[in-house]
Amino acid sequence: MSEAVRIYPEGRVTLREVGLRDGLQLVKCFPSTTAKQRWLREEHAAGVRCFEVGSFLPAKTFPQFADVGEMVASVAELPGAHGIALVLNERGANDALASRVPEIASVVSATEEHSQANARRSRASALDNIRRLCELRDASAHRPIVHAAISMALGCSITGAVDPAEVLRLVDQCFEAGADAVGIADTVGFAGPKQVGALTAAAVKLSGDRPICVHLHDTRGMGIANASAAIDAGARILDGSLGGLGGCPFAPGATGNVVFEDLVFLCESKGFATGVDIEQLIAVRAILREAMPDEPLYGGVARAGLPRPVGTRAA
Amino acid sequence: MSEAVRIYPEGRVTLREVGLRDGLQLVKCFPSTTAKQRWLREEHAAGVRCFEVGSFLPAKTFPQFADVGEMVASVAELPGAHGIALVLNERGANDALASRVPEIASVVSATEEHSQANARRSRASALDNIRRLCELRDASAHRPIVHAAISMALGCSITGAVDPAEVLRLVDQCFEAGADAVGIADTVGFAGPKQVGALTAAAVKLSGDRPICVHLHDTRGMGIANASAAIDAGARILDGSLGGLGGCPFAPGATGNVVFEDLVFLCESKGFATGVDIEQLIAVRAILREAMPDEPLYGGVARAGLPRPVGTRAA
Repeated sequence: MSEAVRIYPEGRVTLREVGLRDGLQLVKCFPSTTAKQRWLREEHAAGVRCFEVGSFLPAKTFPQFADVGEMVASVAELPGAHGIALVLNERGANDALASRVPEIASVVSATEEHSQANARRSRASALDNIRRLCELRDASAHRPIVHAAISMALGCSITGAVDPAEVLRLVDQCFEAGADAVGIADTVGFAGPKQVGALTAAAVKLSGDRPICVHLHDTRGMGIANASAAIDAGARILDGSLGGLGGCPFAPGATGNVVFEDLVFLCESKGFATGVDIEQLIAVRAILREAMPDEPLYGGVARAGLPRPVGTRAA
Repeated sequence: MSEAVRIYPEGRVTLREVGLRDGLQLVKCFPSTTAKQRWLREEHAAGVRCFEVGSFLPAKTFPQFADVGEMVASVAELPGAHGIALVLNERGANDALASRVPEIASVVSATEEHSQANARRSRASALDNIRRLCELRDASAHRPIVHAAISMALGCSITGAVDPAEVLRLVDQCFEAGADAVGIADTVGFAGPKQVGALTAAAVKLSGDRPICVHLHDTRGMGIANASAAIDAGARILDGSLGGLGGCPFAPGATGNVVFEDLVFLCESKGFATGVDIEQLIAVRAILREAMPDEPLYGGVARAGLPRPVGTRAA
C-alpha cells in the first residue's frame, strides 16, 4: 500500500484544511505564528487531521509563509496529523524535503496561457518540476507524498472555458511524472456541479486507486453544491478553509475556499463520517476573527448552528 | 392540459421569486408598495415570470401584506407573469379568489406536532382547508391553480427528523384533496442534498405529471447544493428570493430562502435555460438595499459577478 493510499484511504472522505496556506494567500493582516499554531492545534482537537500549512517561497515576497518550517514542525507534534506544504521550484522542494513535511504539493496550470501569464513558464516546464520533485522524493529517506495540483482545471481566468480532455491528459501526465496524488482545482470558481461532477468522475476513473483531490472555491456560491457533486462522482479528498477564509486574485471581493465547517456538515449529511466535531470547529473561528479582524468569515452552519429541534411551541 | 402543467411545463425549470412573500415575513422594515412594485417590475424585465406576492391575512397582524391585492393586480399587468398568493383560512381563500390571483397556496405541516404548535390545528384540518379551497376553485369562473405546500418536510423545528413516508403520504393526500401542485419545503434548512434528492425523487415519481415544487432555505449553507440535488432528482419548480432575503423564525440569525441569483446561475450551469438575465437581476438588489437597508443580502454571483476571463496577464 502506498503512503498516499494510507493517508487518503479510498473508503472514507478526507477533508483538508488549506486555510493556513490558500486562506492566507491574500489576507492583508498576517496572523502571528502563535495564532496559526493555536488555529492548527484547536482544529486538530476538533478532529481535523490534514493541514496545508504554508509555502516554501521567498519570505520577502510571501512573508505570511516565512514560518512554514515552524508550522510543519507544529503539525508533526500533533498525533495523527498530516502536514502539507506548497513548493513552486527546486529550491523550495529542497527546503520542503529538509523540513520533512509528509506531503509536498506543486502546481501546474490547466491552460498554457495561464501557465505563461501566472508562472512565466510552460506547462511542460511545470511538469518537469513535478518530475524533479518526484526524483528528490525517491532519493529521500522519508519519501513524502508528492501532490500535483492542476489549477484552473474547471475554468481559466485567462481563457475562460477549459477543455476537460486537456485536464485529463494533464492528470495522466502528473501521475506519469511520478505524482502520488493529483488535485483538480476550480481556482476561480467558474464551475457548476454538473461540470465538477463530470470532470471528477473522469479523473477518478482514470486514476484508479491513486488519490484525486478536489479543491473548490465558493466564488459564485456553488462551492458546497460542487463539493456534493464531486463526492457523488467519487472524490474522497476535498479541500476547504475555516470560515471560507481567502479571496481570489482574479475576482475582487470574491470569497475564498469552500467553507470547511459547511463541508463537514455536507459530508456528515451524505453519510460520510468526518471525525470532526462541528461545534468545536466553529469555536476555532474566534482565533481567526481575533488575528484577522478585517477578513470576512463565511458559512451557514456557523451562523445558524446545527439543526436542533426546539421541542417547544414555536412562534 | 391542466393550467398547472401549462404554467409549469415539465421539460423546463421554473424559478419562482418568493421574496415578496416569504422574504418579507420577518423583516423589520417593510418596503413600500411602490418599492415592491419596482422590485416586481424590474425582476420581470430581467426575465423572471413567477412571483409569490403576499398573503391574504389580517393586515393588523401582517401589515407587510396589507397591499397584497394591489400586488396581485401589479403582477397581472406584466406580460407573461404569474402571480401567487398565500392563504391560511377560508376568509383568505375568498379574498384571494376575489383578487383573481392565478395561483393560491396553502400550507400543511409535515408533522402533527408542528401543525398543532404553529397553526393550532391538526394536519387533517389543514388538509380540509385545502379541500375547501379546491371546492371554491372549482366553483370559480377563473379557476386558479391550488398549490399545497408541505412545510417542515425535510426536518421539523419541533420533532427534528421527519419520516419521508409521512411526507409522501401527505403529498398524496394533498393531490387527493384536489391540489394542482404540491410543494416540499425545507422550512428550517435542516437537510443536506442526499435527503433532498431522495424525497424529491420519491415525490416526483408519486406525482406523475402533476407539478412538485421544492422550496429550500439556505440556513446552513446547503441551499444551492440541495437545489442541485432536487433538480437531479427531477424537480422542475424551485423557489428562491433575491439576495436570499428573509430569515427563519426557528433559527435566529439564519439566512432566508435560497439566493435567487445563485439559483439562476446553478440552473444555467446545469443546462437549464431560465430566460433570466443574471446581471439585470443582480441590479434589482439595489431596490432591496434602499428599501430595507438593515437587511443583509447574500449571494455569490452578486459578489463576484459572472465568470469572465480577463484575457490579460494575471497578477
